[in-house]
Amino acid sequence: MSLVRKHVQRLRPYVPGEQPKDRGLIKLNTNENPYPPAPKVLSAIKRAVDDRLRLYPDPRAGKLREQLAGLHGVDPENVIIGNGSDELLGLAVRAFVDPGVDCVQYFTPSYSLYPVLADIHNAKRNEVCLLDDFSLPPVKQLRKKEGWDFRAALTYITTPNAPTGCGYTTAELDALCLAQKGVVVLDEAYVDFARENAMHLAAKHSHVLVSRTFSKSYSLCFQRVGYFVGSRELVSALDKTRDSYNVNGLGQLAAEATLKSLPYYRSNFRKIIKLREKVGLVLAGLGFESLPSQANFILTKPPRFAAGTWFKKLRAQKILVRHFKGSHVKDYLRITIGSEKDMNVLLRAIRAILRG
Amino acid sequence: MSLVRKHVQRLRPYVPGEQPKDRGLIKLNTNENPYPPAPKVLSAIKRAVDDRLRLYPDPRAGKLREQLAGLHGVDPENVIIGNGSDELLGLAVRAFVDPGVDCVQYFTPSYSLYPVLADIHNAKRNEVCLLDDFSLPPVKQLRKKEGWDFRAALTYITTPNAPTGCGYTTAELDALCLAQKGVVVLDEAYVDFARENAMHLAAKHSHVLVSRTFSKSYSLCFQRVGYFVGSRELVSALDKTRDSYNVNGLGQLAAEATLKSLPYYRSNFRKIIKLREKVGLVLAGLGFESLPSQANFILTKPPRFAAGTWFKKLRAQKILVRHFKGSHVKDYLRITIGSEKDMNVLLRAIRAILRG
Repeated sequence: MSLVRKHVQRLRPYVPGEQPKDRGLIKLNTNENPYPPAPKVLSAIKRAVDDRLRLYPDPRAGKLREQLAGLHGVDPENVIIGNGSDELLGLAVRAFVDPGVDCVQYFTPSYSLYPVLADIHNAKRNEVCLLDDFSLPPVKQLRKKEGWDFRAALTYITTPNAPTGCGYTTAELDALCLAQKGVVVLDEAYVDFARENAMHLAAKHSHVLVSRTFSKSYSLCFQRVGYFVGSRELVSALDKTRDSYNVNGLGQLAAEATLKSLPYYRSNFRKIIKLREKVGLVLAGLGFESLPSQANFILTKPPRFAAGTWFKKLRAQKILVRHFKGSHVKDYLRITIGSEKDMNVLLRAIRAILRG
Repeated sequence: MSLVRKHVQRLRPYVPGEQPKDRGLIKLNTNENPYPPAPKVLSAIKRAVDDRLRLYPDPRAGKLREQLAGLHGVDPENVIIGNGSDELLGLAVRAFVDPGVDCVQYFTPSYSLYPVLADIHNAKRNEVCLLDDFSLPPVKQLRKKEGWDFRAALTYITTPNAPTGCGYTTAELDALCLAQKGVVVLDEAYVDFARENAMHLAAKHSHVLVSRTFSKSYSLCFQRVGYFVGSRELVSALDKTRDSYNVNGLGQLAAEATLKSLPYYRSNFRKIIKLREKVGLVLAGLGFESLPSQANFILTKPPRFAAGTWFKKLRAQKILVRHFKGSHVKDYLRITIGSEKDMNVLLRAIRAILRG
């Protein structure tokens, strides 16, 4: 008899995008920011690499929580820091969902980690398709449509969505939150590249958590820092179930320094958005059908060859994009907006492939 | 109705030792190493603080797992890295224990995180007292004694034990492992300060995992890196349930560099052990009754005043030790072996308190 729980034996783990060892690749597959952290962030980390590494970090990440509370106009008790927002997404399942009884709900396509988190917890999952154009079904329509559960213990909404890049308005998110009886997590991992954010809904509704991360917008994937903002009740439940030293010390310091260099990052957001629009136009001219993006990537249906073929052809030219085989978006490629230089190499490669 | 699961509402979180902001305190309360990381480790981390921080770390910590596999004579598939060993201790409950059905078992006193991990998972817990001298009950005795469960889904054994510091022989651990039908985790967080380690039991028994950490012995608490060694079946189950980017990149690099400077650390172990023996003798001369320690701390019953009073008197002199109120060891203080200088300050303070 196996020592491993039955549902864990059956489990299919989450598959992250490839992190190649070959530094010569152009990496447009996991939505990393092309710009490095601000110089002051790098120097703050370097300065901290000393005797203090032998000590435990602040288990409550007090300084960082205070800074974030100030930024978002809430109290530190409304903020919890995670080892990346992925950790907090997992804690939410464990704190709010009774396995075998309650369900974890989300739209498809969205972040492909959600079903894995439900499965790890042995919870029911409820997947409901977005509309054909990948927009959010209005509440009225969800009420008529069979399948959506307004009493789901936990509902995840990626906004702007991944892997589509489509943005949702705060008004439609607010309406959906109002209709839900369980906990709603608005996963705003890409929100800094969008037209609006829904942070104030975390203060408005006691059952809504907003998830943010320092990974993408703030060029700190390597350091694993994310956070949730929400009511004291929900935040305190997550807090009780996390590991006490869940956020590494240099990560805390890096995030603290990041918040003191916001103008640098905001200028990067603008550059990335501008480049995204430009690349979108060029791709359109080449016959690619892209979804309107409010993120730092473009989901696009390529012409001539199947998406899987494009993936291989680009890989052969040392350009790595993301293709979600066998998914709702199997006909698409997801292309991260990298540096101007990288995007030029990509566009040249695409033109060469099209010329055949 | 609350949105939080009932058992989470009732949950009492783990209370870590105080991490004071006041750098002027002598910190002998959370078993941190008095020596900084090796100079080569510090410089390896500093060198890595660059553009790479914008990228995701290796989700599988491949290089570190290979190095550890080499060190312990196993395959990389027998090694899993965690965000500190605490993360892996939690994953073990989720991978091996069915909530409401199975039980998590451990001796008391031992690491006070275990009951919290069981409670977070809503699992039954089975606590069995150590013998009066805090030694491990032999299997024969456990078979006669009511209460111990040889079929427990998960048994944690801290070895050497915390907070007592008592070492267990590999022979007695082997006998206990042989008798257990479920998964056994030998938690060797302090083993580098002990006479022997039980690592080979992870290769010998397919149901045994050995837990190690870079925190205490390798002065990397700040960076959160721990690992388990065990059979492919158990390691792969844990691997499927962890977050994909669970170990931060600078932590991985720091641990890799650490394994290249082992002589530095081994020399520190010897210094700490020597100082532990010396301090033990001085304390005995002052009327303290200490348990024989194989860790980097001493559990000791102080004379004259209650342990709680001693804690406060030392705190007033800016010396922080650990006192576990209302526990099996409430009559004791746990004192980390710090630097020679810190221990001299401690002993002077103790003498002054005794003089009254």
